[in-house]
Amino acid sequence: MARTAEANQRLREAQRVKILESASRVFARLGRAATMADVATEAQVSQGLAYRYFASKEALFQALIEQAMQTNPTGLQSFLEMPGTPGERLALLLSRLVESRCEHPELYQILDQVQNSETTPNNLRALIRKRGQIFLDVMSQLIVEGQATNEIAGGDPAQLVTAIAACLEGLTKLALPHPEQFKKNCPDVGIILRMLKPQVD
Amino acid sequence: MARTAEANQRLREAQRVKILESASRVFARLGRAATMADVATEAQVSQGLAYRYFASKEALFQALIEQAMQTNPTGLQSFLEMPGTPGERLALLLSRLVESRCEHPELYQILDQVQNSETTPNNLRALIRKRGQIFLDVMSQLIVEGQATNEIAGGDPAQLVTAIAACLEGLTKLALPHPEQFKKNCPDVGIILRMLKPQVD
Repeated sequence: MARTAEANQRLREAQRVKILESASRVFARLGRAATMADVATEAQVSQGLAYRYFASKEALFQALIEQAMQTNPTGLQSFLEMPGTPGERLALLLSRLVESRCEHPELYQILDQVQNSETTPNNLRALIRKRGQIFLDVMSQLIVEGQATNEIAGGDPAQLVTAIAACLEGLTKLALPHPEQFKKNCPDVGIILRMLKPQVD
Repeated sequence: MARTAEANQRLREAQRVKILESASRVFARLGRAATMADVATEAQVSQGLAYRYFASKEALFQALIEQAMQTNPTGLQSFLEMPGTPGERLALLLSRLVESRCEHPELYQILDQVQNSETTPNNLRALIRKRGQIFLDVMSQLIVEGQATNEIAGGDPAQLVTAIAACLEGLTKLALPHPEQFKKNCPDVGIILRMLKPQVD
């Protein structure tokens, strides 16, 4: 009995993930004009089943956004406190972010669309903006700490943060037209990290 | 007499530039919905005068695109042949591109909008696509040449090109919301060039 309940739970989770992944593709393709029917077709499930997992298109959207914002399970701010030197933590954070941008560019596009759409509820827009600010703050703090330990190049931390943030944003843009093909050219995080390396001349 | 003709010519050129700059701001703000009337208002000239310089909105658009594509007077390909080592030429090319992205983000946004709009004539779209390809080819060739002279880090040239291209694209995106404020944080090209620096460990 317990085993059947567990199996059912796993099946439900798998279906939820399948619907979310399909929604991510459909929203990326059609923007907010996408309907639950489009999502159900993409996921090869009935519309009724899709609604059993997500009460509305808005609920689906919100779930996608929450997924996009959880680059890692414990959140961006955990990188300020986890073990390791500032440089090591920055490298780990960036490798997660580069991978996420290259593997799921459509999620970031959705975040953008939601952020820029006039129909987005204000609280959702505020949530996305806040997430962007936390990202910049965490990066900035790790860079300043890394400059103190000589792991990170000197110079204006704001410029270093901007260079890294630009690179991440650009990856989404370049990946979107041909996501599968792009994965081949996705730069190794080591290349991007070189922007932060102290210079020995 | 000759002097008056010259003075008139200078005045005409100044007015043309003023209308173009106004158009660039208006198109960036309103997209292709912008009208000649919007442009004339922004430039503080009469609509009739604006039409004397540009026969139609399409003509204005085309002029803006041509301006955006001329990152330098002699074109991207000249960087393959000018004097200097591959590393020096790459540094020069990138410093021009970073400056252009940070100073005129709206021009690049217009290129994007034109490229993605279904109403764009095919030849214009092809022109923009071709310019993008030339940029990637020139970067790629300079990187390969620079790897041969040990000025550029080893590794997959396609990944290096992608990292640089992503950074440039991202600069436009980050600059657009607050262009004036952004100029303070625009990364020095030296930071971006570090991605290409050979590593000594």
